[in-house]
Amino acid sequence: MSGMLPSYVNGEWWVPDAAGGADVADGSDASGGAGTQGTAVRDASTGEVVARVSTEGLDLGAALEYARTVGQRSLGALTFHQRAVLLKQMALVLTERKAELYEISSRTGATKQDSWVDIDGGIGVLFTYSSKGRRELPNSQVYVDGGVEQLSKDGSFLGRHIYTRLPGVAVQINAFNFPVWGSLEKFAPAFLAGVPTLVKPATPSGYLAEAFVRILVESGLLPDGSLQLVSGSVPDLFEHLRLGDLVAFTGSASTAERLRANDSVQTGGVRFTSETDSINASVLGPDAVEGTPEFDAYVKQLVTEMTTKAGQKCTAIRRAVVPEASVDAVIEAARARIESRVVVGDPRAEGVTMGPLASIAQRDEVLRQVRRLADAGGEIVIGSTDAPTVTLADGSTGASAEGAFVEPVMLRFADAASPALHDVEAFGPVTSIVGYSSVDEAVQLVARGGGSLVTSVATHDPAVAVALASGIAAYNGRLLLLDRDDARTSTGHGSPLPNLVHGGPGRAGGGEELGGIRAVLHHMQRTAVQGSPEMLTALTGVWHAGAESTPYAAAGEVHPFRKSLAELRIGDQVVSGSRTVTLEDIETFAHFTGDTFYAHMDETAAAANPFFPGRVAHGYLLVSWAAGLFVDAAPGPVLANSGLENLRFVTPVSPGDSVRVELTAKQITPRETDEYGEVRWDAVLKNQHDELVASYDVLTLVAKEQAAA
Amino acid sequence: MSGMLPSYVNGEWWVPDAAGGADVADGSDASGGAGTQGTAVRDASTGEVVARVSTEGLDLGAALEYARTVGQRSLGALTFHQRAVLLKQMALVLTERKAELYEISSRTGATKQDSWVDIDGGIGVLFTYSSKGRRELPNSQVYVDGGVEQLSKDGSFLGRHIYTRLPGVAVQINAFNFPVWGSLEKFAPAFLAGVPTLVKPATPSGYLAEAFVRILVESGLLPDGSLQLVSGSVPDLFEHLRLGDLVAFTGSASTAERLRANDSVQTGGVRFTSETDSINASVLGPDAVEGTPEFDAYVKQLVTEMTTKAGQKCTAIRRAVVPEASVDAVIEAARARIESRVVVGDPRAEGVTMGPLASIAQRDEVLRQVRRLADAGGEIVIGSTDAPTVTLADGSTGASAEGAFVEPVMLRFADAASPALHDVEAFGPVTSIVGYSSVDEAVQLVARGGGSLVTSVATHDPAVAVALASGIAAYNGRLLLLDRDDARTSTGHGSPLPNLVHGGPGRAGGGEELGGIRAVLHHMQRTAVQGSPEMLTALTGVWHAGAESTPYAAAGEVHPFRKSLAELRIGDQVVSGSRTVTLEDIETFAHFTGDTFYAHMDETAAAANPFFPGRVAHGYLLVSWAAGLFVDAAPGPVLANSGLENLRFVTPVSPGDSVRVELTAKQITPRETDEYGEVRWDAVLKNQHDELVASYDVLTLVAKEQAAA
Repeated sequence: MSGMLPSYVNGEWWVPDAAGGADVADGSDASGGAGTQGTAVRDASTGEVVARVSTEGLDLGAALEYARTVGQRSLGALTFHQRAVLLKQMALVLTERKAELYEISSRTGATKQDSWVDIDGGIGVLFTYSSKGRRELPNSQVYVDGGVEQLSKDGSFLGRHIYTRLPGVAVQINAFNFPVWGSLEKFAPAFLAGVPTLVKPATPSGYLAEAFVRILVESGLLPDGSLQLVSGSVPDLFEHLRLGDLVAFTGSASTAERLRANDSVQTGGVRFTSETDSINASVLGPDAVEGTPEFDAYVKQLVTEMTTKAGQKCTAIRRAVVPEASVDAVIEAARARIESRVVVGDPRAEGVTMGPLASIAQRDEVLRQVRRLADAGGEIVIGSTDAPTVTLADGSTGASAEGAFVEPVMLRFADAASPALHDVEAFGPVTSIVGYSSVDEAVQLVARGGGSLVTSVATHDPAVAVALASGIAAYNGRLLLLDRDDARTSTGHGSPLPNLVHGGPGRAGGGEELGGIRAVLHHMQRTAVQGSPEMLTALTGVWHAGAESTPYAAAGEVHPFRKSLAELRIGDQVVSGSRTVTLEDIETFAHFTGDTFYAHMDETAAAANPFFPGRVAHGYLLVSWAAGLFVDAAPGPVLANSGLENLRFVTPVSPGDSVRVELTAKQITPRETDEYGEVRWDAVLKNQHDELVASYDVLTLVAKEQAAA
Repeated sequence: MSGMLPSYVNGEWWVPDAAGGADVADGSDASGGAGTQGTAVRDASTGEVVARVSTEGLDLGAALEYARTVGQRSLGALTFHQRAVLLKQMALVLTERKAELYEISSRTGATKQDSWVDIDGGIGVLFTYSSKGRRELPNSQVYVDGGVEQLSKDGSFLGRHIYTRLPGVAVQINAFNFPVWGSLEKFAPAFLAGVPTLVKPATPSGYLAEAFVRILVESGLLPDGSLQLVSGSVPDLFEHLRLGDLVAFTGSASTAERLRANDSVQTGGVRFTSETDSINASVLGPDAVEGTPEFDAYVKQLVTEMTTKAGQKCTAIRRAVVPEASVDAVIEAARARIESRVVVGDPRAEGVTMGPLASIAQRDEVLRQVRRLADAGGEIVIGSTDAPTVTLADGSTGASAEGAFVEPVMLRFADAASPALHDVEAFGPVTSIVGYSSVDEAVQLVARGGGSLVTSVATHDPAVAVALASGIAAYNGRLLLLDRDDARTSTGHGSPLPNLVHGGPGRAGGGEELGGIRAVLHHMQRTAVQGSPEMLTALTGVWHAGAESTPYAAAGEVHPFRKSLAELRIGDQVVSGSRTVTLEDIETFAHFTGDTFYAHMDETAAAANPFFPGRVAHGYLLVSWAAGLFVDAAPGPVLANSGLENLRFVTPVSPGDSVRVELTAKQITPRETDEYGEVRWDAVLKNQHDELVASYDVLTLVAKEQAAA
């Protein structure tokens, strides 16, 4: 593979005409020189040309329009659950062929461990979104947010919030460090939302992104237009974007700034978020002195973050913020750990634990930033900027002229107020260390980063954790609290997880990535809807009280419990007869259950309670009776009562009162991969005066079809 | 009142030195000329000078810093509920003194009805946020978002999302049309979040904002620094803003664009949202032909939106999108309604139903935009741009040279594709009408507005409602579905409500206002937190499974139900004994409740069910027994079981199995204005094999103190 890397657009693979001219390099993320045959991309360890990229002659506008038409249509034909099932199938296909990806990944300078983060991490995102999509989203296309808002006294005018998918394209502009994960972490929520994706990988590692896209295309799992790939630069991208499109950028703050300033974002309504290289901090608590498990966990994590992916992570620790008295100890411990464990070299060589940077250009840039930090007062206390001796692919050691190798470097700042400490990022195995004298000062130092993706805090003192976390939370997208209880199981400072938000305020770019369903909703528009119960029911697929219902009347009609999912309709209803509660019933229930709470047993004490007129029926008695009143007992499609939600007891029930129940089919959620699904029923208990006694949702599992006779 | 309008900053009233120089007018929103004594603000109907405004010499940076220090501190000392109680008290004080506000409001050109929207509407926002704050937020300072994420198999490492307040100032830059509501709708959620506010009203009606702020200051209810007011221009505002501050702008799209381009927003992390004059549409469904209740409701709403506040509403209908065949009928009906009901004049005169525009400058601007619409092909079919004959303050009729009066104007566009129809806003009693030939075309026309605050749809056909709503939802912040069922109770196309989001995508500015607690969270930072159960419990105030618990052991210790809110601690626990289920128990329960579902009664049928090994106990039996196992029956601080949430049945229980329950105090929420509060208990049922049988939350009401002996 050293030919032209193809793009995948408009449903087909594309390369420039052989006669095509030179491609303009990407600026910040391009490596190698451009030529008449495109930009050359080189192996990070050996400098060998891996591939060339060029978009000369590619009609980007047509690709975007293909997504907006064909892609929107094919995804729009699927429900959330159907999309979720496809994500799992994609994850399985990638898992099957991951050896190919690992092989290619090593050319980017990634060690096996780095590739695991990228490749298995990316596949893990697909699995998680598949699972969350089916557990946390309805099996339909509209997401309902929050409760019903009563906008009129008589219930004829209601409000509700819904999310519907954006009508455009989700454009990814990715960083070079995690070509698989970085793409899949954005693709999964967009796909689940029903929004087609166009991936623009960073040039230095775009060949790995191409490889996973090729596997997905070959799998036949991708709905038409749901995923496109542009290998090469996209200088006129923003001219083609419009309201309904969204851009998720990962990379440097300065590039993000330039892109965000574009008219389509500023006034055109294109949603733009970025996830940029923030100056993340890791704080050692005052209690976590040398010898504590927290001190050890802190140092271990610090070194891991310096060296994983050679420190080329947006989430890496750039500032170690430690009590003045512990600065020396942390430096010593980190140095010892690095010396004993870190082997720099070609990741294909045995024993190498830290690979090169992504390119010679990146190496030069990192060394330049280290010099800036040093010039600003940072004293290099671990490592150096000299070319390191490294392990080469053949196992020999020596200098490498072609590989983008650097040593892990730690700088110590005596002056915590130095702006460079909080502003300058060396995007490599580089971290600064600084002392603090009070928890308040530590908070201020973290805040000076101007907004970060993540800060970790090592402490076993809950009071310190609360003081630090409350002070710094608003400056961070994620906080990790590290102590002896979770050090072993912690997923680590630098690891974004699909179920937690990844993105921070300010300098971190305001990203809206991951965080489970939150990221799906980022690809959708929230809209308040006002209307009658009938209309809200039609629009949301969820029955609203006051909308048409179809009460089942015993004689000759079919009880809703006798209907399969295929037969049941929203609004199908049981209106029960009523049952009178006697004091004897209350006594019986109390003695049977052991619940002899005085409100049920002692007239005088109950009457003294602010909420009860005297002895009242147990809430659980009422709910149990309700089940007796609405149930259809014989075997049928209803398989089980799986739960109950939002139960509120409103009016107490005294001996002599009677209760009845209205049970209405509220939401029907077939499962894609089972022979049954969930039916949510609206349950309302009323007394003989038509007062509301209790309301709740009953959850049942119901077969999709009637059992064969 | 025609002197210098004061500002309220740094805890005191402020006016420029008498020797102060000229004030620079606000640009878009300034009325009257500037002089050495500030900018003159005039009565909209009579042209009389009402007040002068100037910020000459005002130290805006100091005011912002006062908010960030004193304001943050005073609000930070309060919980959500305490702030909510203050909002209600403020609402009551404003209600008491609203006659003063109505009096002043009429000078802005507002009719009684307009003032009701502004003043009572604004007070209503305070009441709603007070109520929602106490019902939907915890009585603490951290808001927990979503569920627990299990990040390790052994439960020692968990993830959770929290919101903490932004550490800065909420700056309001408001429009002239609703000086009270426009300010309170932003103040209420900011205050509830704990973020201090600085209000910068629009100059033409700033004297009304000053009046309500004065009432609040005089009430003594405002925590120090929680509300400041700047009367006059703030040219250097953005230079003083930084990460942690947020700006909510209401006004023209062009001003929003200019402000958003500021460095502090683009790269400094200042949260900026705007709520701008979108080109909102109202669609008449194909079924809503003349003679239907929907047609009548549509026309009535259309005229109301044209004339309320003389059409000076960001939410007013600018485009009436109606079936081709109904265009003439709608014009005729609207004309008839306007002729019979709309009386233009000084709002202080009897019988006037539509006042002047806010200023002569506004009138000239509106007429200019009407001419642009006419030049672009809009035929004026109702009203004209001539100076209208109006009712003057003394009841006489005639022309007015000094009042900013215009007539309601409707323009008909034959060409639905005319860009002006979708782009040009005349911010007055002006609307365009255009025909469509298919529902798809109607969707396209609405979308051409480029993002709107609201679109209404009049139809009684759920299929039409769903087709339209699904197509246009993503282009709108709010949809109103109007039909015969809600026409009488509808709050109207143009009325934002505190419980529904107010703000739309694209041209509408992406505002995050109102929508209940959603707007509170807009003033807070969402952060993912990872840590041990102990640490997450400390940080959130909510007990997490795995954190320390204090099991009550019968002998000599105090059962948690015997502890008042003051005594109870998160983690206090009842670990019950176990109880064995017999077939007789199941039979007894079935016959007592009437719940003879076959899974409990018929061994063969139950065993054929995919989820059950044979006959199993009722879920309700288990939950009822659990209450018997954990209850302490004698009178004590626990007053009532108020509800139950998130019940899931996991493992079925067969005869011979036994169950026990662990009940742990999870969250304690004292009520500010009652002698009790809510305790949420974590309930876990397990069987004799330690398998999870069921889990849920029990909600109880508990007295704050032990009853006096």
